[in-house]
Amino acid sequence: MTRALVLFAHGARAASWAAPFERLRDLTAARLPGCTVRLAFLELMEPRLPETVSQLVADGVGDVTIVPVFLGQGGHLLRDLPLLADGLRTAHPGLRLNVAGAVGEDPDVLDAMTNYCVRSIL
Amino acid sequence: MTRALVLFAHGARAASWAAPFERLRDLTAARLPGCTVRLAFLELMEPRLPETVSQLVADGVGDVTIVPVFLGQGGHLLRDLPLLADGLRTAHPGLRLNVAGAVGEDPDVLDAMTNYCVRSIL
Repeated sequence: MTRALVLFAHGARAASWAAPFERLRDLTAARLPGCTVRLAFLELMEPRLPETVSQLVADGVGDVTIVPVFLGQGGHLLRDLPLLADGLRTAHPGLRLNVAGAVGEDPDVLDAMTNYCVRSIL
Repeated sequence: MTRALVLFAHGARAASWAAPFERLRDLTAARLPGCTVRLAFLELMEPRLPETVSQLVADGVGDVTIVPVFLGQGGHLLRDLPLLADGLRTAHPGLRLNVAGAVGEDPDVLDAMTNYCVRSIL
């Protein structure tokens, strides 16, 4: 079964905002040669999450993991993302859909951010 | 001259959102025993950036570094933060104020996020 990873980010009005997310997608894709890696947004930017997953399913993907590229777990992850995931499960009953925790909650990410904060003042 | 580091985050309605930012503040403070480390928000949460910096200045701090704990550089960092920094420089002419780049633009943070994304599907 073909698998895909969807990096899910907020979106913003400024096109420059997407740059680190696009780098993250490219770096991740380079490490996962057998897996389709996509970037999708909640709002303000395209493509959106439902269209991205529907396209993956149309392309034959049966297993999708969504990684929220958010620092904190606020309303977007506590409310919006579960609603989107429910909608996707209803629309695609045969799809295996997994939702990971927010990137910002990962201890190694937190360590790297700590190092950056410390370096910024030394 | 007393120095301070201010971690600047967006803020959200859900109190739970602040948890990783508070951990980041505590981890950073533990690594910088001679430095005051504060967390301040752009909107929706308290304390806000201007009040935080004004309080630091009132406490005798003469050198403040602001680290934006944002993943992308959108309108909040391209427009809102420079305006806030200009206001602080006007309000506190003797203050040395430095603004670092966004945490999400740091290559090591990006590496850690990549590792997390890769692990989420393996």
